[in-house]
Amino acid sequence: MEIIDIIEKKRDKKGLSKDEIEFFVKEYTNNNIPDYQASALIMAMYLNGLNYEETINLTKAMAYSGIVLNLSDISDIIVDKHSTGGVGDKITIILMPIIASLGLNVAKMSGRGLGFTGGTADKLESIPNYNVDINIDEFKQNIKEIGISLITSNADLAPADKKIYALRDTIGCVSNIPLIASSIMSKKIASGANKIVMDVTYGNGAFMKDIEGATELSKIMIEIGKSANIEVRCVITNMDEPVGYTVGNQLEIIEAIEAIQGNMPEDVEEIVYKLGEQVLLMTNKASSEEEANKMIKDTIESGRAFNKFKELVERQGGDVTFISNTSKFESAKNIIPIIANNTGYISGIDTEKVGKTSSMLGAGRKTKDDIIDYRAGITLKKKIGDSVEEGEPIAYIYTNKDDSEADLKELEAAFHITNEPVNKINKVVKIIV
Amino acid sequence: MEIIDIIEKKRDKKGLSKDEIEFFVKEYTNNNIPDYQASALIMAMYLNGLNYEETINLTKAMAYSGIVLNLSDISDIIVDKHSTGGVGDKITIILMPIIASLGLNVAKMSGRGLGFTGGTADKLESIPNYNVDINIDEFKQNIKEIGISLITSNADLAPADKKIYALRDTIGCVSNIPLIASSIMSKKIASGANKIVMDVTYGNGAFMKDIEGATELSKIMIEIGKSANIEVRCVITNMDEPVGYTVGNQLEIIEAIEAIQGNMPEDVEEIVYKLGEQVLLMTNKASSEEEANKMIKDTIESGRAFNKFKELVERQGGDVTFISNTSKFESAKNIIPIIANNTGYISGIDTEKVGKTSSMLGAGRKTKDDIIDYRAGITLKKKIGDSVEEGEPIAYIYTNKDDSEADLKELEAAFHITNEPVNKINKVVKIIV
Repeated sequence: MEIIDIIEKKRDKKGLSKDEIEFFVKEYTNNNIPDYQASALIMAMYLNGLNYEETINLTKAMAYSGIVLNLSDISDIIVDKHSTGGVGDKITIILMPIIASLGLNVAKMSGRGLGFTGGTADKLESIPNYNVDINIDEFKQNIKEIGISLITSNADLAPADKKIYALRDTIGCVSNIPLIASSIMSKKIASGANKIVMDVTYGNGAFMKDIEGATELSKIMIEIGKSANIEVRCVITNMDEPVGYTVGNQLEIIEAIEAIQGNMPEDVEEIVYKLGEQVLLMTNKASSEEEANKMIKDTIESGRAFNKFKELVERQGGDVTFISNTSKFESAKNIIPIIANNTGYISGIDTEKVGKTSSMLGAGRKTKDDIIDYRAGITLKKKIGDSVEEGEPIAYIYTNKDDSEADLKELEAAFHITNEPVNKINKVVKIIV
Repeated sequence: MEIIDIIEKKRDKKGLSKDEIEFFVKEYTNNNIPDYQASALIMAMYLNGLNYEETINLTKAMAYSGIVLNLSDISDIIVDKHSTGGVGDKITIILMPIIASLGLNVAKMSGRGLGFTGGTADKLESIPNYNVDINIDEFKQNIKEIGISLITSNADLAPADKKIYALRDTIGCVSNIPLIASSIMSKKIASGANKIVMDVTYGNGAFMKDIEGATELSKIMIEIGKSANIEVRCVITNMDEPVGYTVGNQLEIIEAIEAIQGNMPEDVEEIVYKLGEQVLLMTNKASSEEEANKMIKDTIESGRAFNKFKELVERQGGDVTFISNTSKFESAKNIIPIIANNTGYISGIDTEKVGKTSSMLGAGRKTKDDIIDYRAGITLKKKIGDSVEEGEPIAYIYTNKDDSEADLKELEAAFHITNEPVNKINKVVKIIV
């Protein structure tokens, strides 16, 4: 088999066989195919598409390019959760302890932030001494003993996806539904869960810009899941504004700690309950939405969810005194408001711009070797639909930088104010199972 | 300017500006853009297309990536000729001395063979001591003094095209009209002629498979020419069988030597006269087709064309005694016939297969470092429309290989015989000016 023939086939919009896809993934991962040939093939895939069968074959080839975890000795049901990315998205940190506190086993690996979106692994690391880099044996041990472990992606899992994703990133081939689906699902297959709830985001702070794209992505991921005996449920959520009121690692952790104790912003609550409900239904823990919602409410109000979170933090080496008393988190040096220029209603927020500003303030990375400032970030005082008066603060930046004039300007430009009242955004748009 | 933005633009089917194209060509040639990004961009160009303006800008950027010859001190009119490739195509070697013998200045650089097509430079080198690698000063000097020089492509001309073509070859992006047009024309602009006749081939032995493709390619090349003050005329010729009766370097040279003296196979004559006629018309040497044809006939019959060829060979260091007496060319060791299995008419020849077999016999290269066997090749005894009797030889292979069983089988499979009479092929299909 020759890679040139595979490139020409996809160039001519023909379907690739399982063997051809496996050949590409294996030989590229083993450095037997040069980047420039892989890159031509990926651009041809991007432009000429991959059908469901090809996408499933690509996903599995990437999943099986490294270690594939078998967690069946822990339980028949292992829960995972994934978000396709957003700004201020701390849902994992709130939802996973809730789910674990209801007796389910949660195995969750999270990425780090890159570009305008944050990463759950970075957020967890803003808890002093929390270790996201524990090995697979400890990961399994923790799930076995306390029902939950939240760690970062393991380098031995789906190495082909890592290599292909890094290439896609440099050649403008990230924003493609089959490629996104196969990337996400290859890691999910490799990480061993069999019940996965997906938060599929769309809007100006997400990779998918519209509901149609999010729906298509959901359907493909569900099909891939089926082919690997993994049940996937997708909750499509709007990302035309950040999730909750904080953006930035430590700020989000503090908001999450509040939320696990029942103090949730409206939109966070909507997403947490809907995702949680789907997990409880798919695992047969609940037989109706009402029952599921009640279970979530109870576990939060009783403090069991919060206790599970503390147990998790302690188990992974984190300093729980920070969880019990969030005032121990030291704030960024400078907290500077963005002031409304006129009176009216917040009609729109350029969410990607908010994410980018947070990243520029130090909360994110421009390249993967950049060091994160956990204290940097943004808090929002107003969200879409909120009324605002001239001179009132809309948001604050948190930064240790001495000069943040440009960041302030950038963030200010992200908020749009109109005279007419504006509706609040409903976060959950659609469930696809 | 960032290459990733240029890739994304073409990925999204948007037009690239002159600056963007120049940036890509310059930075890629200077090794500031890695192959994998160039390769993604080229695949996006292949699939999403380039309009005339983009194609012209790409061509000029590649042309001006190196030395651009100025031959205006030799004459106001400098003639060049190009073929888009075929099998057994020795037209340049016949036509150029004819044109030079009529008082025009001919500046022709030819490529080497790669894949199933031969290269004029290799063919000329089968004349002992003929030096195709003379430098630019000698090239110009020869044109000035004897009105003609035939050499191989100079490495200092259009280096961007060389680099981009080599990449295209490895990623299945050769067969694309705007990319082919810009590659050909960039070299033509750099090599200094201003009157170019193009033999644009189509058929099973050409890169273009149909007349539509050949027509489109012709129109683009004419437009590019206009933008650079170069007059281009295109003659579309059929390549569903080899040109003449020989394929392989020395065999073709011998056929060409015969042809310059007036002994031309019908199809060779048709092409030589039509291309020659267009050169004489575009340079105002002749005012009608009839006049042009008479001039060509006269210069051949008078021996002036043959003398010009000998003058050329001598000037480039070649041994003219081989030209005067072609029996001096030593034949390949083995000459083996392909025998007709049944009686009928030759209805089709897989021309690419003939070219590939010739290459496998030693006449061509699989990689650019392979060494050519000048004596290897194929002679045809029958062409399309010819009647053939069972047991009669259809073709002969010339080889120094001891085992050529596979090559014989391959060549045999290239010939198709039917019971019904079949028309001969007209070579010249259309003129586009």
